[in-house]
Amino acid sequence: MPESMTAALLTAHGGPEVLQVRDDVPVPIPGPNQVLIEVTAAAVNNTDIWTREGAYGAAGNPGAIAGWQGVPLQFPRIQGTDIAGKIVDVGEGVDTGRVGQRVIVDPPIYDSEAEDAKLLAVYGSEYDGGFAQFVVVDAKHVHDVSGSPLTDEQLACLPTAYGTAMGMLERASIKADEVILVTGASGGVGFALVQLAAARGARVIALTSEGNQDIALQAGAHQVVLRSSDDLADTITRVAGGPLDAIADVVGGSMFSTIIPLLRDAGRMVIAGAIAGPVVEFDLRVLYLHRRILIGSTMHTPAHFRWLLEFARRGSISPLVAQTYPLQKIHDAQRDFVEKRYPGKLVLLP
Amino acid sequence: MPESMTAALLTAHGGPEVLQVRDDVPVPIPGPNQVLIEVTAAAVNNTDIWTREGAYGAAGNPGAIAGWQGVPLQFPRIQGTDIAGKIVDVGEGVDTGRVGQRVIVDPPIYDSEAEDAKLLAVYGSEYDGGFAQFVVVDAKHVHDVSGSPLTDEQLACLPTAYGTAMGMLERASIKADEVILVTGASGGVGFALVQLAAARGARVIALTSEGNQDIALQAGAHQVVLRSSDDLADTITRVAGGPLDAIADVVGGSMFSTIIPLLRDAGRMVIAGAIAGPVVEFDLRVLYLHRRILIGSTMHTPAHFRWLLEFARRGSISPLVAQTYPLQKIHDAQRDFVEKRYPGKLVLLP
Repeated sequence: MPESMTAALLTAHGGPEVLQVRDDVPVPIPGPNQVLIEVTAAAVNNTDIWTREGAYGAAGNPGAIAGWQGVPLQFPRIQGTDIAGKIVDVGEGVDTGRVGQRVIVDPPIYDSEAEDAKLLAVYGSEYDGGFAQFVVVDAKHVHDVSGSPLTDEQLACLPTAYGTAMGMLERASIKADEVILVTGASGGVGFALVQLAAARGARVIALTSEGNQDIALQAGAHQVVLRSSDDLADTITRVAGGPLDAIADVVGGSMFSTIIPLLRDAGRMVIAGAIAGPVVEFDLRVLYLHRRILIGSTMHTPAHFRWLLEFARRGSISPLVAQTYPLQKIHDAQRDFVEKRYPGKLVLLP
Repeated sequence: MPESMTAALLTAHGGPEVLQVRDDVPVPIPGPNQVLIEVTAAAVNNTDIWTREGAYGAAGNPGAIAGWQGVPLQFPRIQGTDIAGKIVDVGEGVDTGRVGQRVIVDPPIYDSEAEDAKLLAVYGSEYDGGFAQFVVVDAKHVHDVSGSPLTDEQLACLPTAYGTAMGMLERASIKADEVILVTGASGGVGFALVQLAAARGARVIALTSEGNQDIALQAGAHQVVLRSSDDLADTITRVAGGPLDAIADVVGGSMFSTIIPLLRDAGRMVIAGAIAGPVVEFDLRVLYLHRRILIGSTMHTPAHFRWLLEFARRGSISPLVAQTYPLQKIHDAQRDFVEKRYPGKLVLLP
């Protein structure tokens, strides 16, 4: 085992310059009940960018520089919530037979298995993640996918994008034959939402931008509406043939107030992000007069992840990898990601 | 049966002057499957004021002059969603044995019995209500409470205030031992929320204004916090001993953003009104990063109303009647209501 490795160190909250790729970072050593993973692929996600920027704000202080927990991270930190790779060493208490397993990591750490458990920490945020050649992870978060027909690049797309999408669909109880609007449908989470919602038999209306219609249809959308449509609200209602059963949103911003009224009485909107801006104007009457429900969602539960693993092992979902980059090119990857240069996932290969 | 009656006619959306008390209004005649009720008591509610003013706005147009359905009412209209009285005549298809029954009316009309049914109309809004000496109501909305130990004035407090509170607690699944914050705890719905939440074993923290602490404690609140407290958020958290399981809110306004972050991960906030202002600034991150849930609630379902009827028949809840007024004094009653002159319910006696 080498003593040092290449890793992207987050040295502070800030712009791309605070992310420093170095090749003299000590390889971590697995403690009791931990494993050492050689990282083969790590996908790029919005949360990496927001965490780098400290763009999560805090309760009562939307402009605070903070990670998702409302406080600054400790530095240096290795980001990367999506980890695919191979177990190369194990700590005390872990079966040495696991060495050699091809694995992916379940990133969130909860205080219990309950549905309403508290989210304590996330690999790649409060603990080091996959933007490095090696990472140490608690063994119970490391799942064997040796038999999966998916590539390592595809496997690396699952935890954050598909986990977030699965958490959203489950928390909103999306059922077969329901009509669901998915915003940002060509993004990482949006593409996963379309695939997973269509797979459970929902009728999916994908909201996306010019040029990405084919991607949304490829993911399984039944209909596509362009975000730039005149009279967006009327267009969605016409395409849907009436009020929506549900909305899955990662966009937020000014569109939030446009689309909520399109839900039927007691319809559900589930939100897991706000790339167009988190602070919105909100008319509470639109919510309560029609008994609509707004569901906040972050990542997924261990139960949701077990279903994702089943999909991964059977190869019944197919993440779209748009581009891969060596770890040294992380700045290029994040720039391409922020500029939405490619539909589909961008993956680093440490 | 007299041919004409005294009734408060809403002649347009507007100020108190559009409400005209007249004594030459024809007594309505019950059609098939309807009954004629002689109204003995009708409580005053926020929805009467908002509907008179047309203050509900419309989707995409918060300032629109409209009833709760987002369009203006048809005039003239007799308001009054809360109807207690006596059946004095029945239409074809209704058992004549019902004449003489002491009754209350279940105001909302849904398109089905399903939890997510569409709310089509409400007595006192789309159909004439209780601000008159007589009213015609579909028989299935008229429930026998002959044996109730409650007075007619108390019975008239149940449908809107207690129905709304029951709908909120049910939709938010409030359970025993949960810690719930109730805003506007000395108002009609707030008082009912405190009573009903305490009755199901929740620990209730009542948020109210100076002078109303005793009312909140009388309703069953375990602790009272004054809205004027310095560092309101910290005070609530200290009194609660940690994060809240749930919030039941009818106030909205600027306090909305102050109290949402006090919920635990996956905590629920249920909203049924916004007397302090419906259009709020909302940081979506406060929702999604902690998987919080915002539940819109309007009135109640038929199932919720059946439970209320059980309470009414057993006398196991005790609405607080603050003042009664003859129907001719409806303007005084609405003024006292808007000025929050008395804690508890104001009831008209037609």
